[in-house]
Amino acid sequence: MKSESVFNIGIIGFGTVGTGLVSVLLDNADEIARRVGHPVALKRIADLDVTTDRGVRVPDGVLSQDVDALLDDPEIDVVVELVGGYEPAKTFILRALKAGKHVVTANKALLAQHGEEIFAVAGEMGLEVGFEAAVGGTIPVIRAVKEGFSANVIETVFGIVNGTGNYILTKMTEEGLDFETVLKEAQAKGFAEADPTFDVDGIDSAHKIAILANLCFGTPVRMEDILIEGIRLIEPVDLEFAAELGYRVKLLVAAKRVNDSLDVRVCPTMLPESQIISQVGGVFNAICIKGNKSDANVLIGQGAGSLPTGAAVAADIIEIARNRRLAGVAGAGVRVPPLSYAPEGRKPIPVRPSSEIVTSYYLRFTVEDRPGVLSAISGVLGRNAISIESVIQKGRREGERDHVPLVMMTHEAREKDVQAALSEIDRLEFVSAPTILIRVETAEGQM
Amino acid sequence: MKSESVFNIGIIGFGTVGTGLVSVLLDNADEIARRVGHPVALKRIADLDVTTDRGVRVPDGVLSQDVDALLDDPEIDVVVELVGGYEPAKTFILRALKAGKHVVTANKALLAQHGEEIFAVAGEMGLEVGFEAAVGGTIPVIRAVKEGFSANVIETVFGIVNGTGNYILTKMTEEGLDFETVLKEAQAKGFAEADPTFDVDGIDSAHKIAILANLCFGTPVRMEDILIEGIRLIEPVDLEFAAELGYRVKLLVAAKRVNDSLDVRVCPTMLPESQIISQVGGVFNAICIKGNKSDANVLIGQGAGSLPTGAAVAADIIEIARNRRLAGVAGAGVRVPPLSYAPEGRKPIPVRPSSEIVTSYYLRFTVEDRPGVLSAISGVLGRNAISIESVIQKGRREGERDHVPLVMMTHEAREKDVQAALSEIDRLEFVSAPTILIRVETAEGQM
Repeated sequence: MKSESVFNIGIIGFGTVGTGLVSVLLDNADEIARRVGHPVALKRIADLDVTTDRGVRVPDGVLSQDVDALLDDPEIDVVVELVGGYEPAKTFILRALKAGKHVVTANKALLAQHGEEIFAVAGEMGLEVGFEAAVGGTIPVIRAVKEGFSANVIETVFGIVNGTGNYILTKMTEEGLDFETVLKEAQAKGFAEADPTFDVDGIDSAHKIAILANLCFGTPVRMEDILIEGIRLIEPVDLEFAAELGYRVKLLVAAKRVNDSLDVRVCPTMLPESQIISQVGGVFNAICIKGNKSDANVLIGQGAGSLPTGAAVAADIIEIARNRRLAGVAGAGVRVPPLSYAPEGRKPIPVRPSSEIVTSYYLRFTVEDRPGVLSAISGVLGRNAISIESVIQKGRREGERDHVPLVMMTHEAREKDVQAALSEIDRLEFVSAPTILIRVETAEGQM
Repeated sequence: MKSESVFNIGIIGFGTVGTGLVSVLLDNADEIARRVGHPVALKRIADLDVTTDRGVRVPDGVLSQDVDALLDDPEIDVVVELVGGYEPAKTFILRALKAGKHVVTANKALLAQHGEEIFAVAGEMGLEVGFEAAVGGTIPVIRAVKEGFSANVIETVFGIVNGTGNYILTKMTEEGLDFETVLKEAQAKGFAEADPTFDVDGIDSAHKIAILANLCFGTPVRMEDILIEGIRLIEPVDLEFAAELGYRVKLLVAAKRVNDSLDVRVCPTMLPESQIISQVGGVFNAICIKGNKSDANVLIGQGAGSLPTGAAVAADIIEIARNRRLAGVAGAGVRVPPLSYAPEGRKPIPVRPSSEIVTSYYLRFTVEDRPGVLSAISGVLGRNAISIESVIQKGRREGERDHVPLVMMTHEAREKDVQAALSEIDRLEFVSAPTILIRVETAEGQM
């Protein structure tokens, strides 16, 4: 019979995050026991690859290929899913919950797509699903939303939640390099994956804002309701114009209340360079949460990486161990609902169509350098109810051909009107490339 | 008999924070109930002043002068102490605990001085003491240390925890004004108290770093062991020199592990201007926590103010309500120990005498403008094992008399040696005012 004074962990998936978690659990075992009041023990790890040396010393008999033995082990209290992707990760999580085990996962894609189903099963079983590591890496943002700002009506959550995208934009800004060049370098350094789609096209960010918005506003947010744009089309010239105008460009996620609906988006965004989040470069993540009573708070830290993410997973394990101590064996369910609100307290809020978004826009037209162009473009914008705040038009630079960039910053306009105007403008005969659009944020997170 | 599905609050002290808390509890009652799963009710407020209009609508019969009735009310689950100061705040808290009530407080002075006694009584009674609002205002830093970074051995915690001090230094930096002028303005705006001693002399900051260090390192830290210096001696010229050298001056708190001891200090500190914390101005607070696995994380937000602080107090109330739901009526003590470590897991770590601190120094000598001065001063420094990294000496400016500033940045040196050198230098006949010393931080929180 198992001692109640040990808490046993089973890890499925021994990759980057799994290795970091094992390092945390082994190196900091004494620290963790001092905080929890009893040891947290690494009982099993299941992975198909049991031979590669990951640089951590796993105790004998812990690592095997046998995921069934792990899921069926009655002594395991928490199953940590670090396989990633949808399947078999989802099956593993559901099996663990149905076997009465708490779950911790870093799998944002799975939670964004199938979180509601997983949390429903966990709720029926009275079990916890920890996922601090799914958003913002080691930044305790899930905890901040669920507990730190629990007394607030949250108005806005926004920030940088993809380290790869931030690294690329930072490097492009600082060194004037183009997207493809920086991407290749990031891949060589291990900051970007061989297939960078999820990171640079905004999909990973969208998974994370879907999860955050769900927690902040108590409503499910579907991927298909999110405006998602990546950073592939951004050119160094846009970053130069941004700097000239006093802005920086970040791959920003944002979810905000607008009347009785939500705006949820992922897109390259121009932020005033004086804002704290503009200063967060490299692979760091930064998230701003604005509550009706706490005002704006910014949390900054490592958004990825083996150890930082492993430490966030371990913090969830510690939380569950502490909760179990409080609840005792006959514990009455979970302490904080996984989605922050009590299930009966959640109220769906519709996500507003992205065509209704109202913001300012940076527009870079690529046009022939001849008379009448400015007036034609501003005419189209005017007929679409878009008013211009400023214009930058420069003479041709060496090496540029007949086509030059014409940049306009608009006042607040409606996305639908801007898209209509651009589709009209991009058909004009003196326009030689699709117009680049970057949304501008000025009002939020003044800090 | 009281319903178990309501959680009743009694507030002692209806000042700035109390008013903010009432506003949060009333305005966000529905949101809070949705998160907790049942209402959190404001049952009683006790304050000597029951007539002043605080701009919040307190329900009839809630406000009275009768603190005994509040402490003796068997229906009150949590007593919120917002009186401030040592007595009668401490007596109220101990009475509440002995009556079986959980406690929430924002009283950093009391916790820094008498926390161990209060937490011991709470521990015996199996009750919670929440104090998120005591450090960093609305920033959930207590939670971050106790839970977010619970899997880390924490190496360093440092930051800006006094909004008044930060406001004054920011204003002095941006506008070149002197301390007294800015202090008067801050007092007029309500950003500084009539007696600003606690804020500008570093005492409030010391209370906060004592609490943070206790949580981060699992050891009591006494006020008398902390190096405490305020900002009164800083002059605009120091801020100009700092800018010229690429630094900003902040009233910084820091606690770090150095071998088997801790350095704990509060003092004006020069930070590289590229660091995130250097960018945090005005009344904002910013705290960096560096763990052995999570690396550096920075949390930024409102460090004071009625609503932000009230929201932090309310978050503690919500936490206790959620814990009680999990534990049931026969709950087994507290979930997370108030000082983060299980009581048996705390291990005293000595605080190293401040004379042993090793860091770089900015030194501003006030000297006669004549030959031999530089050589005499550098001679004294050299004999005290202090090596100079850079020197700024400028010609007299208009309006300056014979005495000019001579600025030196040192390499790393020992505090004891620096103090010895300065006491020698300040006795030299060509030195006409006490030397200004500002410690320099470069290594921590590279972000």
